[in-house]
Amino acid sequence: MSLAERAEMPSDIEAIRAVTASLAAAAYDKNAAAMARHYAPGAAIADLAPPLVSRGFDVAKAQAWLDDWDGPVEIEMRDLMIEAEGDLGLCHGLQYVRARTRQGEEAAWWSRITMTFARAGRGWQITHEHNSVPFYMDGSYRAAIDLDP
Amino acid sequence: MSLAERAEMPSDIEAIRAVTASLAAAAYDKNAAAMARHYAPGAAIADLAPPLVSRGFDVAKAQAWLDDWDGPVEIEMRDLMIEAEGDLGLCHGLQYVRARTRQGEEAAWWSRITMTFARAGRGWQITHEHNSVPFYMDGSYRAAIDLDP
Repeated sequence: MSLAERAEMPSDIEAIRAVTASLAAAAYDKNAAAMARHYAPGAAIADLAPPLVSRGFDVAKAQAWLDDWDGPVEIEMRDLMIEAEGDLGLCHGLQYVRARTRQGEEAAWWSRITMTFARAGRGWQITHEHNSVPFYMDGSYRAAIDLDP
Repeated sequence: MSLAERAEMPSDIEAIRAVTASLAAAAYDKNAAAMARHYAPGAAIADLAPPLVSRGFDVAKAQAWLDDWDGPVEIEMRDLMIEAEGDLGLCHGLQYVRARTRQGEEAAWWSRITMTFARAGRGWQITHEHNSVPFYMDGSYRAAIDLDP
């Protein structure tokens, strides 16, 4: 790669941020296939719902989840910390999801999101994702989907 | 650092694994201060209990949690994936915690754990930790502390 080419490349931090923005855009468009392109084959995914960890982005499951909402699924990132060295990248922060149920109710929740990236050609692919909410340790074991940062 | 000194150093992967082993040993000894030494000041911690994220390892809170159990708190890691490049390290995998309540009941649960590390001198410090269980999306919103990998 020439210096001129390199100078035109987004920084690794910008490139990783662009992946998160592309994921949000794909969720808004309810296009799970467009989301899947950002995941490495066999990526380790620890999601809000069981199991503890699954392997590989499940396009059909993601599409069914997106289609279960009425209208777009809006995803915003906050306090996103991005780091990259060599071929290893990661980001962690908070994710705010808003969508409308088929019954017309507005749903919205904050979760904690962490993603690991591997350099893939000129871009970055997600090799690991961890998305969660805490739970109340008051004996209820209720998932804390009602927290604000 | 001389080549001889470098040859005697554990690899970055081994050094990060040693941090997780040291954390487990400190938990077994119920020594929160020994755990705290592995955390960078202001580390971002997304834990099993609310809030979404807190800043810095809270020694008093961790010690109170450890002391709330009768006897040692046993922590085992499984499927731990460790990566390091330059001054950036991370690990993710599953964590199995076993302890006995003051009422004599055995408690045990699996969670997903992700840690980000920064090189600090010859070692590595935790700058971010994300520990979670999923929750059941069956309308109960119950934390899934009963899952096996």
